[in-house]
Amino acid sequence: MLTLYGDPHSGNCYKVQLLLTLLEKSWRWHTIDILAGGSRSSEFLLLNPNGRVPVLVLEDGRALTESNAILYFLAIESAYLPVDPFARACVLQWQAFEQYSHEPFIATSRFIRRYLGNPPDRAADLAARQAPGHAALAVMEQRLRDHAFFVAERYSIADISLYAYTHVAEEGGFSLARFPAVRAWLARVATCPGHVPMNAPPPA
Amino acid sequence: MLTLYGDPHSGNCYKVQLLLTLLEKSWRWHTIDILAGGSRSSEFLLLNPNGRVPVLVLEDGRALTESNAILYFLAIESAYLPVDPFARACVLQWQAFEQYSHEPFIATSRFIRRYLGNPPDRAADLAARQAPGHAALAVMEQRLRDHAFFVAERYSIADISLYAYTHVAEEGGFSLARFPAVRAWLARVATCPGHVPMNAPPPA
Repeated sequence: MLTLYGDPHSGNCYKVQLLLTLLEKSWRWHTIDILAGGSRSSEFLLLNPNGRVPVLVLEDGRALTESNAILYFLAIESAYLPVDPFARACVLQWQAFEQYSHEPFIATSRFIRRYLGNPPDRAADLAARQAPGHAALAVMEQRLRDHAFFVAERYSIADISLYAYTHVAEEGGFSLARFPAVRAWLARVATCPGHVPMNAPPPA
Repeated sequence: MLTLYGDPHSGNCYKVQLLLTLLEKSWRWHTIDILAGGSRSSEFLLLNPNGRVPVLVLEDGRALTESNAILYFLAIESAYLPVDPFARACVLQWQAFEQYSHEPFIATSRFIRRYLGNPPDRAADLAARQAPGHAALAVMEQRLRDHAFFVAERYSIADISLYAYTHVAEEGGFSLARFPAVRAWLARVATCPGHVPMNAPPPA
């Protein structure tokens, strides 16, 4: 059985949870409590020396880290990863956009506000993340104005990567009011067959 | 002919230049001067609404952004991308590590010091990037202690991604003295057949 080391409240872990569920895989959580230092324990660092969740451990014990690499591995030969090389590269392009231009602003703002309790000494840091976070949402809005999904007009792991933290962007203080195409796409993803919300229990 | 929109001094652009050269592709630079605002011009934003180099434009006009996605696209069906799905996912894992845990600290420090002229008002910012930058180098050191290259014991685009800014890490104020396996790997990459240094002219 596949084991997902991670925190069910983390969007990066939710990406993997969502795809595992869509693919009807047999899997289980191994909960790592980040706030309690779980991703920095000596045991966890053996799995991922970079000290980050999620980590997917295969039945044979091999471990894979980095949410978007895990999605790629799981999606190969599924409908969630196009076969065409250029379309596949476009999926990776949007995943790289998510990790570099979206997650550090939108996900980190959510972490500061929701999990660190919005401490006053992080107020300037939080404020500095507003403009680049909105810029990332504007890039998404531009793409989604003319497209149902990010790549090849069908639901792929590019959408899963971007959905994870965009659908909780308001918890990070980002309003989606100015981004109607993003809101329509969020609804489209959430109504795809097999969808599970963040922090849903794994299949029995 | 392939056109690489970018800045020859950018490590993210150098990644693509290095792979294009190794693959003996026919290509040309279209220089974008980041410091002069070239990546924010209205013309460039049509190519990449996210306003970042590099962008690879194919002969048919299609554009691909994000250095690691471009490497993937170019390396398909070459020796620089393994065929095995798990090994391929490991390549993407190390590329994601590079973009999230390495580049924002090591490349950005180099940019502040070398291109912004190390201004006093960025001193605290620069200092804050030291610890995570060294942590990234330590993760690389641990991997390379027992491996000649990052994935499957052969030179791949994972190595190209990590080489680009690691080989100029000292320009960002990072000493490689404590990382002998990283230094040996840098030498190994630089002596691979077909290697070109950063900012070399494209083939005539």
